[in-house]
Amino acid sequence: MSLQQSTSLPVRTSKTTVAHPLAPLSAQEIHAASTLIRNQWPEKTDLQFKVLTLEEPAKAEMVPYLEAEFKGQSLPSIDRRVMIAYYIRKTRIQMLIFSIVNLSTSTVESNVRLGPNVHAAGDGEEILDIERLALEDEGVQAEIAKLQLPEGTAVVCDPWIYGSDGVGDDERMYQCFLYMRDPKNTDELDSNHYAFPLAISPVLSAVERKVIRIDMMPTGKDNTIKPTQPWKPVHANEYIPEAQTLRTDLKPLQVLQPEGASFSVTQEGTSQTLEWQKWSFRVGFNQREGMVLYNVRYDGRSVFYRLSLSDMSIPYGDPRHPFHKKAAFDLGDVGAGVMANDLKLGCDCLGSIQYLSGVLANDQGEAEDMPNVICVHEQDGGIGWKHTNYRTGRAAVVRNRELVLQSIITVANYEYILAFMFNQAGEMTYEVRATGILSTQPIDDGISVPWGTVVHPGVLATHHQHIFSLRVDPAIDGHSNRLVYDEAHAMPRSDFNPHGTGYYTEETVVSQSGGYDLNPDKNRTFKIQNANVLNPINHKPVAYKIHAPPFQKGIADKESFNYKRAEFSDRNIYAVKYRDGELYAGGRYTNQSRGGTGVRSWADRKDNIVDDDLVVFVQFGINHVPRIEDFPVMPCEIIKVSLKPVNFFDRNPALDVPPSTQEFNKSTLLSETHKQPTVEGIVGGGNDLCCKTTTGSKL
Amino acid sequence: MSLQQSTSLPVRTSKTTVAHPLAPLSAQEIHAASTLIRNQWPEKTDLQFKVLTLEEPAKAEMVPYLEAEFKGQSLPSIDRRVMIAYYIRKTRIQMLIFSIVNLSTSTVESNVRLGPNVHAAGDGEEILDIERLALEDEGVQAEIAKLQLPEGTAVVCDPWIYGSDGVGDDERMYQCFLYMRDPKNTDELDSNHYAFPLAISPVLSAVERKVIRIDMMPTGKDNTIKPTQPWKPVHANEYIPEAQTLRTDLKPLQVLQPEGASFSVTQEGTSQTLEWQKWSFRVGFNQREGMVLYNVRYDGRSVFYRLSLSDMSIPYGDPRHPFHKKAAFDLGDVGAGVMANDLKLGCDCLGSIQYLSGVLANDQGEAEDMPNVICVHEQDGGIGWKHTNYRTGRAAVVRNRELVLQSIITVANYEYILAFMFNQAGEMTYEVRATGILSTQPIDDGISVPWGTVVHPGVLATHHQHIFSLRVDPAIDGHSNRLVYDEAHAMPRSDFNPHGTGYYTEETVVSQSGGYDLNPDKNRTFKIQNANVLNPINHKPVAYKIHAPPFQKGIADKESFNYKRAEFSDRNIYAVKYRDGELYAGGRYTNQSRGGTGVRSWADRKDNIVDDDLVVFVQFGINHVPRIEDFPVMPCEIIKVSLKPVNFFDRNPALDVPPSTQEFNKSTLLSETHKQPTVEGIVGGGNDLCCKTTTGSKL
Repeated sequence: MSLQQSTSLPVRTSKTTVAHPLAPLSAQEIHAASTLIRNQWPEKTDLQFKVLTLEEPAKAEMVPYLEAEFKGQSLPSIDRRVMIAYYIRKTRIQMLIFSIVNLSTSTVESNVRLGPNVHAAGDGEEILDIERLALEDEGVQAEIAKLQLPEGTAVVCDPWIYGSDGVGDDERMYQCFLYMRDPKNTDELDSNHYAFPLAISPVLSAVERKVIRIDMMPTGKDNTIKPTQPWKPVHANEYIPEAQTLRTDLKPLQVLQPEGASFSVTQEGTSQTLEWQKWSFRVGFNQREGMVLYNVRYDGRSVFYRLSLSDMSIPYGDPRHPFHKKAAFDLGDVGAGVMANDLKLGCDCLGSIQYLSGVLANDQGEAEDMPNVICVHEQDGGIGWKHTNYRTGRAAVVRNRELVLQSIITVANYEYILAFMFNQAGEMTYEVRATGILSTQPIDDGISVPWGTVVHPGVLATHHQHIFSLRVDPAIDGHSNRLVYDEAHAMPRSDFNPHGTGYYTEETVVSQSGGYDLNPDKNRTFKIQNANVLNPINHKPVAYKIHAPPFQKGIADKESFNYKRAEFSDRNIYAVKYRDGELYAGGRYTNQSRGGTGVRSWADRKDNIVDDDLVVFVQFGINHVPRIEDFPVMPCEIIKVSLKPVNFFDRNPALDVPPSTQEFNKSTLLSETHKQPTVEGIVGGGNDLCCKTTTGSKL
Repeated sequence: MSLQQSTSLPVRTSKTTVAHPLAPLSAQEIHAASTLIRNQWPEKTDLQFKVLTLEEPAKAEMVPYLEAEFKGQSLPSIDRRVMIAYYIRKTRIQMLIFSIVNLSTSTVESNVRLGPNVHAAGDGEEILDIERLALEDEGVQAEIAKLQLPEGTAVVCDPWIYGSDGVGDDERMYQCFLYMRDPKNTDELDSNHYAFPLAISPVLSAVERKVIRIDMMPTGKDNTIKPTQPWKPVHANEYIPEAQTLRTDLKPLQVLQPEGASFSVTQEGTSQTLEWQKWSFRVGFNQREGMVLYNVRYDGRSVFYRLSLSDMSIPYGDPRHPFHKKAAFDLGDVGAGVMANDLKLGCDCLGSIQYLSGVLANDQGEAEDMPNVICVHEQDGGIGWKHTNYRTGRAAVVRNRELVLQSIITVANYEYILAFMFNQAGEMTYEVRATGILSTQPIDDGISVPWGTVVHPGVLATHHQHIFSLRVDPAIDGHSNRLVYDEAHAMPRSDFNPHGTGYYTEETVVSQSGGYDLNPDKNRTFKIQNANVLNPINHKPVAYKIHAPPFQKGIADKESFNYKRAEFSDRNIYAVKYRDGELYAGGRYTNQSRGGTGVRSWADRKDNIVDDDLVVFVQFGINHVPRIEDFPVMPCEIIKVSLKPVNFFDRNPALDVPPSTQEFNKSTLLSETHKQPTVEGIVGGGNDLCCKTTTGSKL
């Protein structure tokens, strides 16, 4: 059967209630969509579904819908569409097929083969199969045999996305890295194999699913390859608690909300809306981005149309074959949704927790439940604001309560803890915690190299970058927004500035789509404004400013595939005119990609973005130069991006937060001499100790 | 009586137990020291004590003492000395007198008049007196009368340190800013007067204590001064809770430690030592710096000799007289200790809290108790590290417990929340939260200026910078340390780097004292190393690295007094060879200072600082371009500086933190549909849910 546009075949769909247009696909919808695709092909055609996810409605349809919804008016009807990318297995030259299925009409609206060098992400079934095939391969086993490992030693395979170097890499492949588990502890399946890297790297065809080459790694200071030698014993380096002598002096710390939490979740099918402290938004979850927030409002005012982590590039610094191809795009190459952990109460989340679950499609085009992929909770963020009138001694103080939506993803060795955080001052923060285990490789004894750190005897952790792209689709009091930046400049000396102390800020409008950089030396601050809505007091346009830490941009040179593929990695800010479907800063298909399909390319259109529907991609990152302290598992490295109101409100929006009092907070006074709490007369005691007594400074 | 070196007069001191050499002065010691000074002068000489604080022992004495103390050996005897700066009141030309008193020998070791343009800080007695005198002045009252304020309206005076412009400012003066309280709410003493700034600015002599001039402020776009006109009514803008319609939907969130906290405080006279999770240190408290930490060790290993906030510069951007002189040094001009709030349980601190109190000297040279100036508590810092083995589904996760020492200072309008934070991964973070109220000035209706933001009708908040200097006196495994920085560079293309992806780090040793800058584009990372102590695994020198956010340095030009005086404000890092007494980055006397006495000058000595006793000053800051959201009280703006181990340990030092389990953390599962907790079978239930079940990602 040929591929064509708009083929239409009826399919049985259970006619249930109409899903919200932004609701993730339900299990029934996933089944219906894959069935529609299967029906395009002869029976028993073996399809491998790579993406099967909600095709979000065109914004032109969605904006009036959300407006009607907000106003309680009757809702326009919007067709449910599904975006599908799939292969036909066991075809010699696999071409990815991209389809749009309309569930409302039960039609396949589009079903087209994509061109060369367009490859889908890895999926769970495939990666586990590649692992098995690599280890079962006779050539690989022969190479492993040369190590003369102790009886019973387990060898472990981490399949890596192949990367791109333009050398014989048109076919979709996997580069596998091999490790072994501690031979002295063979029963421990959670023994840390990253402490025992091997120099054998099988390459497998993802299409034929077989080993096509075995690369040997250089382990010295240069790129010499040495024949496999018998393994020399080295001790283990475990992260699991039973391998440690644990601290015994940590006392429990519990977070209680005796009256429950301050947020409420409304479940509508697969979609959830959340309300908390004047904030409201809809939570989505998909295979690629994981958590997505839609229609983010504060006190009913529109702030963001859509927020999501768009992309992530992790290039490694070792230039030698095969390491030079270690350049992962964890979202595009695998997916933040599909890698999301099933979060556990008391382990991943402290306090009063509500979990949200997801449904994703597997390689068979069938639904898989993803339980507890997002935890929602409140946390105390320390003091929110305080002032003491030193004349009266009276202090007014409120605490900063935060709402956190957290998702944790495991990307083989690494973990990312991803969180959207909101506070009572109208601020939204996106936080990334990088943790997990360094991807390691073998290094000869006594060697030191400037592109990595020895973290264990014989183990090198190579320098690498983590460059993230947060996609901010703003709707600051509506969809006509602009990007501007402020800079602070010294005033020249003059009669007006006779002592050389004056300075001023100057605002520049970003007139067209492009990449833009921070400049801390000028305090350059990007703001998303609505120039049509002015602050009632100072008549400045309402705005949100972007706080993002500067970072070292992608280091690989501009001719490299790392640069070409990670189209977001070279600028702090990319701003583009909105187009439907342009969600992923590195392009829709990052696996072995060639570049030219991401945000840098979209920005090159040089669209007008002044007082238009624009989208801002905010980049941030870490150049991870490993410390030995990052092994065998790394303490979280935390990066935050914040969006904060600037002249959006008419005063501090957290002014109406109830004061912080002992009656409310029920803290405990520890005695001066030891650790025991003395609670008499304090817990549940009088109220408002801090706000009426003379508590000021000595001034 | 003449001033001379080493005059000696006996004085009665109560012979009690010997204080620790780093213990802050006790009330008895303060009395003894001021008595020794009084005895230098004829009876009834009216002394004004400005500084009376511990003169810390020479490091050459202190290091062997701490070593002996650590090893449990007999302790050398170190004399207790006091640093005193004082004036003789009612003298026409006041000269500051600097004395060193030896309490152990009851001698005045030095007592010398300092030169011109050396002025002491403001003190509580003086500032309150200046307020009163300004408002009582007939000329000021006549000017206020022109405003024709409603009957009963209170006028409020904020005395400001005079600043420096070199124009007739040899004498010590105060520049006062006047405000009024809401005339419609005259009984409310905590009405926010910063919403009603007046254009009248009396200047007072601090020596003669009288008004010497009344400056009128420009209120338009230029520096035209207009005659005082009758006040035009404008509404109030209050921050106190009873003036708000408070949110009613915030549920309590309590932090409980049923077994007490994990830290212990040992009180020794006025000094406290603290132990927590392998960390130990001594806590000091003085008038200038507030909290000081000494002898900071991890698991017995020396990390820092001394940590403190050294200085702070807050220059304002309005170049017009008298605003151009708004350039505060809150620590040197007043003092973080003397301005420290009396912290209240449940208001300023959440959880299980221990308070530390201080004793400071007042203008009479007598002790004043400073209760609860530091709160100590633990907090949950989110996940510390996590890894999920996707093959077994087993997750290992620990939370990051933090120890916080918090002090809050009120500097007239502003508040700073200052905290040292330690964690279980060997990291120390210094956090500043800027909050409180913007210092405001009047502005004509309908005017907008590029050096400030209108935050209320008729109220301008001028742009200003906050530049902080954290003094880090390191002792990384001893006192022979060096400062180095790493940069990451692209490798050139070559046979070794054929695809242009390689990068490497290069370490540069900072060979001599000087000022140095960050460079995010090169990932420049400063580290304090001990080159004599190598990591046992990778043979790198043990080190701590400095994480500090880049910021816009002082904007005022290099000929300005702002630049000359804030000797730390132009560089991210200053490194100097240690010298006793060089504690304050802006110099010992910042009030109306002329420069030349701070860290830039010390750095200019070009001392060798390689493998020597060096001190590092880490600068960080905010260019505060006010938003209307920062009024009438600003949501906390948070900045953090961290010091993190690099190859100091042989692996992740938080590896031995007990796993995060529900048994330990006792979280609560909220039901899916609403806010009520469902606790059955969860709280206090089975153990270790997260660590043994298959909970992995879908991969």
